[in-house]
Amino acid sequence: MPERIVIALGGNALQDQDSPPTAEAQLEVVKKTCAHIAEISRRGYEMAVVHGNGPQVGRIVLAGEAARDVVPPMPFDVCGAMSQGYIGYHIQQALKYALSSRGRNYPVVTLATQVVVDRSDPAFANPTKPIGPFYSRQEALRLEEDKGYIMREDAGRGWRRVVASPMPRRIVEIPAVRLLWDHAVVIACGGGGIPVVENPDGTLEGVAAVVDKDFAAELLAEEVGADALLILTGVEKVAIRFGTPEQQDLDHLNLAEAARYLKEGHFGVGSMLPKVEAAMKFVRANPDKRAIITSLDRCLDALDCKTGTVVTFA
Amino acid sequence: MPERIVIALGGNALQDQDSPPTAEAQLEVVKKTCAHIAEISRRGYEMAVVHGNGPQVGRIVLAGEAARDVVPPMPFDVCGAMSQGYIGYHIQQALKYALSSRGRNYPVVTLATQVVVDRSDPAFANPTKPIGPFYSRQEALRLEEDKGYIMREDAGRGWRRVVASPMPRRIVEIPAVRLLWDHAVVIACGGGGIPVVENPDGTLEGVAAVVDKDFAAELLAEEVGADALLILTGVEKVAIRFGTPEQQDLDHLNLAEAARYLKEGHFGVGSMLPKVEAAMKFVRANPDKRAIITSLDRCLDALDCKTGTVVTFA
Repeated sequence: MPERIVIALGGNALQDQDSPPTAEAQLEVVKKTCAHIAEISRRGYEMAVVHGNGPQVGRIVLAGEAARDVVPPMPFDVCGAMSQGYIGYHIQQALKYALSSRGRNYPVVTLATQVVVDRSDPAFANPTKPIGPFYSRQEALRLEEDKGYIMREDAGRGWRRVVASPMPRRIVEIPAVRLLWDHAVVIACGGGGIPVVENPDGTLEGVAAVVDKDFAAELLAEEVGADALLILTGVEKVAIRFGTPEQQDLDHLNLAEAARYLKEGHFGVGSMLPKVEAAMKFVRANPDKRAIITSLDRCLDALDCKTGTVVTFA
Repeated sequence: MPERIVIALGGNALQDQDSPPTAEAQLEVVKKTCAHIAEISRRGYEMAVVHGNGPQVGRIVLAGEAARDVVPPMPFDVCGAMSQGYIGYHIQQALKYALSSRGRNYPVVTLATQVVVDRSDPAFANPTKPIGPFYSRQEALRLEEDKGYIMREDAGRGWRRVVASPMPRRIVEIPAVRLLWDHAVVIACGGGGIPVVENPDGTLEGVAAVVDKDFAAELLAEEVGADALLILTGVEKVAIRFGTPEQQDLDHLNLAEAARYLKEGHFGVGSMLPKVEAAMKFVRANPDKRAIITSLDRCLDALDCKTGTVVTFA
């Protein structure tokens, strides 16, 4: 049986620091990313792809706010759905070509994906994820009043809306992912999924929240019974004392070590922390499996156990 | 075997003339639409859903242009991908609930869908589809110069960009639609699909064009071997001499009659004409099958042959 992996793509897989924040520049970066992913497929792995959407959904919100006198702005859940269409389209177009030019003629398809979060998730009591433009204090107070937004002062740069980052509980479209898995490469849970809550009557309702894409990828990996969770980011290995002269890159982390480093505050909130936590969650649920955190361009070597940080139960 | 139908949803299935052009208002209309579609499923039909995106992608382009000093505008193919995410999300959320509240627990999922068009399609020589905002003559000339846009004066209201409306030749993600068909309700080819051309090296490339959603639905129906193409619009039946005292609603149209009426100019360009043409194309390719043109709220009666206009080969 081929090994099944879920690949979580970080921001650097979609966008280059040195390029303009345009769709055209994104597509060029995505083509390079997809060459790496196609090589993983060529090694015989079956896979699904989860991507982030932070900068992209940020720009969609920004454009919507800037144009609000012309067109009513979209709610945040819809902005997330739009970013799934945008990014998924680029990946499926580029990955299909990268695969077929390597003799692998698989369908590649993006599924609009909703992820159920819990209304009682503690994250909703303490929203931390800034989205959209900066406002003056006065505008911020008006938005709190008029729209019920929660606004926070952001490091002296002005006020921004903050939303919660709750844990994903259920992937609504998981049956479709499972149906496609054996025959196609699925792009799902883009941006962590469109966050929805489940009402008592069974209806789903979009909410303004950001589900971490690493946690969404982890849940997807659990739900499809993946053999490995591959989290790709900007660095080759997880490090402790990161950025100091005593930085130490880690080849391996077991749950106990990871928990200790985490407690010691080695991993950056919003960057390495959720990746390590997602990896821990995956191996806790699957003690015989592994999660790998590495960089996009070393992903093949990491799958061959030559680099990256491998996270295991023991 | 259950009868397979492809349903093409017109603009009135997504938006209400009397409601504001917001996502929130769209969702309310979509919920009503999905109750009708779920009833079709309850009768035992298997189906896929294709929807239009004219007003939605128009607003995405408008917002992007209005915000161009803040965020680089998206190319038109990406705007189409975004509209698929936006509209597909609403339909899959509402339809899943409408189905499950009728005891039908099917996955419902939106696929980002690319549709290949031919670079040599005559439509590219004569672009007719206006998109985006109105400009002054001076701005229009500048856009022609700087961006290579084709601009047309629009009925005294200013200048607008026009794009081609080529015929769909191939649905790139059709294998995924086929894989899902027996087990899920698929929403595909939204807005007619994201238009792409195929380069000599095999890569696909997004183009600024609008594929008619009725033709995309027709191609989808052919490709999945659907038994019927159901085109839902604002009127119960196709009419000749529409809007005149001699208006005559049609219960049935065969290919020869349809061709004659078409030649006589009975069907409005951009409204009934593409629907009749798509219906004709379907029955020409499938002489033993039928296409139905009717209104959303009469779709069940039409499937029972009690109303609507049925288009058949002979």
